[in-house]
Amino acid sequence: MADRVVPHFQDELEHLKRRLLEMGGLAEDRVRAAVESLVSRDTVIVDHVLAGDTPINQLHIEIDNRCFTLLALYQPMAVDLRAIVSAVKINTDLERVGDLAINIAEAVTRYLRHAPVKELIDIPHMARIAQTMLRDALDAYVRRDTAMAQAVLDQDDELDGLKTQVFRELLTYMLQDPSKIEPALDLILISRHLERIGDHATNVAEDVIFMVLAKDVRHHSGEGADGP
Amino acid sequence: MADRVVPHFQDELEHLKRRLLEMGGLAEDRVRAAVESLVSRDTVIVDHVLAGDTPINQLHIEIDNRCFTLLALYQPMAVDLRAIVSAVKINTDLERVGDLAINIAEAVTRYLRHAPVKELIDIPHMARIAQTMLRDALDAYVRRDTAMAQAVLDQDDELDGLKTQVFRELLTYMLQDPSKIEPALDLILISRHLERIGDHATNVAEDVIFMVLAKDVRHHSGEGADGP
Repeated sequence: MADRVVPHFQDELEHLKRRLLEMGGLAEDRVRAAVESLVSRDTVIVDHVLAGDTPINQLHIEIDNRCFTLLALYQPMAVDLRAIVSAVKINTDLERVGDLAINIAEAVTRYLRHAPVKELIDIPHMARIAQTMLRDALDAYVRRDTAMAQAVLDQDDELDGLKTQVFRELLTYMLQDPSKIEPALDLILISRHLERIGDHATNVAEDVIFMVLAKDVRHHSGEGADGP
Repeated sequence: MADRVVPHFQDELEHLKRRLLEMGGLAEDRVRAAVESLVSRDTVIVDHVLAGDTPINQLHIEIDNRCFTLLALYQPMAVDLRAIVSAVKINTDLERVGDLAINIAEAVTRYLRHAPVKELIDIPHMARIAQTMLRDALDAYVRRDTAMAQAVLDQDDELDGLKTQVFRELLTYMLQDPSKIEPALDLILISRHLERIGDHATNVAEDVIFMVLAKDVRHHSGEGADGP
């Protein structure tokens, strides 16, 4: 990359990072709202989530365009190249998180037609973990912090454990009382959507580690692994 | 891109496409095997699927490396740039399809511990649709064929419809006979995994349309939309 464009590229990259954080914030808000509507049995909130994710979809297109512009105009190398391609992938992950918030809201809508199956403890807990993972993964991306990314990967086991626990517990309720089969099924689906949000955070964290630590893909390299 | 490297880049791109098709074939095989083991109640096949997807994971890394090498060495523009970035995304989608085959196999393992819930018709049908979508989406990528990609997007509705139908039918079984709750739950999860495979095919098809039709991201452009 020619020296004269380096500062400009870094400015653009900072801008891109801010937009990704913004998109992450929007996606996280929607997940929080969807799960809040479940706990508080608030149909107004759930309808709001279902009403659409236009801002997320707009950001998704804008971020994608930014990434392609950066690749085409600056032809970045090494960690900068990986940072932009990672941004394309992270952008996709965040859009999916927005979609999953809608899936959760759809299940909540059905769930609220029935009496509560049980007091909800593990599912809000799963939601908090998934949101934290997502936020930390994005912070790790912005800071190029592999230790933070690794911590996100470690949290995924806790989320998987909770998902299994929720499944077993709800199965028991279903077996004991057929009237709970339908709402319990929706809780199981919600817990799986939350697990998938954790998976998307995991994807982001893996991208961060690859971005920072991967060997340089050019033959004439020497600047492959930048530190965090 | 300088003229002298164009043929070489196109050769590399062809090689990349072949590897993506190969990876798609492997992922599809695993989905087919997982669903076959469900229908034929064959624990040998299911164990084989569970034994791991090392070849897919190796191809995943190889394809990612190829993409980054192509980006760094050739600095492709316009549709070629989008083709490579799409390949990174498609590669991720295909790896996830491989993961979903394992998720299906895990559910099959649990399912086979119980008596059959019912004769399975819709789930194998869903599997065939998902596999076809995946194959067509990859063909559309290789041929840069947006009409074919659009056809994949259209098929997704059929898959969603079947998923809803499977859900309702299995819910009826669960409500009628508590001994069917556990195995029916696993069939519901399997149908959702198949739906997600369709979603990944949809992602690939969307990438193809973006790759072919997106406006060129460079300012001084004129070669944005290449025909199929």
